[in-house]
Amino acid sequence: MRGALITLAVAISASAALAQTQVPIALRDMGSFHIGGRVIEVSGQPIKEVVFTPGGVPAKVDPNGAYQIEQMYVQYFLPQNRRGKVPLLLWHGGGLTGVTYETKPDGGEGWLTMFIRNGWDTYISDAVERGRSGWTNTFKGEPVFLPLGDPWERFRIGPPGSWNADKAKRVTYHGTQFPIDAYEQFMKQGVPRWLTTDDAIVAGYIELVDKVCPCVVLVHSQSGAFGFKVAEARPDKVKALVAIEPTLGGDKNKVALLKNTPVLIVYGDNAKEHPRWSKIRQGGVDYAAVLKGAGGSVDIIDLPDRGIRGNSHMLMMDKNNAQVAELIQQWLAGRGLSE
Amino acid sequence: MRGALITLAVAISASAALAQTQVPIALRDMGSFHIGGRVIEVSGQPIKEVVFTPGGVPAKVDPNGAYQIEQMYVQYFLPQNRRGKVPLLLWHGGGLTGVTYETKPDGGEGWLTMFIRNGWDTYISDAVERGRSGWTNTFKGEPVFLPLGDPWERFRIGPPGSWNADKAKRVTYHGTQFPIDAYEQFMKQGVPRWLTTDDAIVAGYIELVDKVCPCVVLVHSQSGAFGFKVAEARPDKVKALVAIEPTLGGDKNKVALLKNTPVLIVYGDNAKEHPRWSKIRQGGVDYAAVLKGAGGSVDIIDLPDRGIRGNSHMLMMDKNNAQVAELIQQWLAGRGLSE
Repeated sequence: MRGALITLAVAISASAALAQTQVPIALRDMGSFHIGGRVIEVSGQPIKEVVFTPGGVPAKVDPNGAYQIEQMYVQYFLPQNRRGKVPLLLWHGGGLTGVTYETKPDGGEGWLTMFIRNGWDTYISDAVERGRSGWTNTFKGEPVFLPLGDPWERFRIGPPGSWNADKAKRVTYHGTQFPIDAYEQFMKQGVPRWLTTDDAIVAGYIELVDKVCPCVVLVHSQSGAFGFKVAEARPDKVKALVAIEPTLGGDKNKVALLKNTPVLIVYGDNAKEHPRWSKIRQGGVDYAAVLKGAGGSVDIIDLPDRGIRGNSHMLMMDKNNAQVAELIQQWLAGRGLSE
Repeated sequence: MRGALITLAVAISASAALAQTQVPIALRDMGSFHIGGRVIEVSGQPIKEVVFTPGGVPAKVDPNGAYQIEQMYVQYFLPQNRRGKVPLLLWHGGGLTGVTYETKPDGGEGWLTMFIRNGWDTYISDAVERGRSGWTNTFKGEPVFLPLGDPWERFRIGPPGSWNADKAKRVTYHGTQFPIDAYEQFMKQGVPRWLTTDDAIVAGYIELVDKVCPCVVLVHSQSGAFGFKVAEARPDKVKALVAIEPTLGGDKNKVALLKNTPVLIVYGDNAKEHPRWSKIRQGGVDYAAVLKGAGGSVDIIDLPDRGIRGNSHMLMMDKNNAQVAELIQQWLAGRGLSE
């Protein structure tokens, strides 16, 4: 009964959040910057003549010299009615950009504006080598391009074997919350990624944390690993870590560093049963146990155990994204981080 | 004397715009979407096993199948106090993204928020294959990466031969308005570009115009060519075209299409004298003459002729960017496009 009441309260809050979309967003400031990266030297290359615009006037380009690489793009929105005690940083998952948290692929409101409306100074970034952070041909290995169907199963919209190029033949998990009519639209958000750039990505995030924190860091999927690494590197700066379906936890040998950083880990539906996600989730559960054993504060929420069913890996885009955002908001308020 | 009075009035307006940075920005909505692009098919490739996170659980990735390519990212901000009669679309130049119009590299206010404060529904986009639009390995030719020093001379911060890796030895044009201490920061905004993607880029912009216009389109540098092409394709939708240092004008055989689309072309300082820019500018002047001859409305503003000196190719980042924004605002108001 108590569980039912909590579910009801969350549902009402979610409706309130949805209704807010008609309320103007008042910002005391908004803007963007690039941070981090380094300069490398290239030499011994011939000078090129480049026609940048077909029919335009050629320009000589000397490819030798210094190049800027590995910087990171950050955009920020600072609400006039600030209620978050510290800024909130939203870090996206692999093969994506900060767009993850903006308007949903189905046109509905995303977490970015929901958290701004909740009074958080919100910083949204594109990881190094993704999106507006730019990329160079200096990374090791080949970039990964995802076929249209790949995330359908890997992000648990449908079970293994459920993807079909024919929309009418695609199978979903029962009661999926992912807006499946907007799946193709979601795939337009994808960008290439390398598999060898973690150190550069983490370096960029650490520079961001040094610039704008103390803060709350909210991570998703691939950035789970980055969030824990950065919290281990700057435990005094990361006042809470919210990990949405992290693919990896932190370093079990460094848990003592995080004893003052409360951690919330959230998993959607079918994570316990999915052949790959069950292993990923178990890794997170095992890590959390070690962190707790060292005096850390960790809450793991499996949404279906709270009666919240049907969530895919892309919780922030699911139809009930406001309900999940409200759950995170309440958890942060419970840690004294929001008025 | 009359020229001096106009200069003074513009200077006062620019100061007013700068003072506004402390005034909150009230938005009735903000958000983003991807538009356009197409799906291609890849076949005959072997299945790969990919470890997306070092130490993580491997995933099988079948590289065969459909891929989304050539979509475009758009972010929009809709002010509560709307005064622009139609939306304003900001298109960036080559090797850059919509970040061009956001906060300046020196941390000062950019044109995006200046135009939002002026009441424009503002749409900022990353051209196809740039930034948050994503990219694929399907484009012809090699991407271009710009060395750190290349834009210093090509964007007329200093004259030919003025770049030096040593900051202390760099030469600028007399009285440059570019914030030279932030030059390295500016170069962090750069992204690779292909030289073979114009058709896909224009297709993306046309889809955007079809979705959100009638509108004003403001273009810069490489997107000058795109702005004219799109206006020629959708003359009823583009109510005015503001071309900031376009590298190319429109098609002289299609000028009749643009007779109801007023055009403003703006050049900064030293454009008439610079060996490459003098040719580019002359191309614009020649095109404008043909457009005028066909009954079109074109204003060419060479800023130094108005007593506004020192502007580089990156007018929106120059120290006097508010003054140039105000000049554009007044031109648009004069065409009945802003209250």
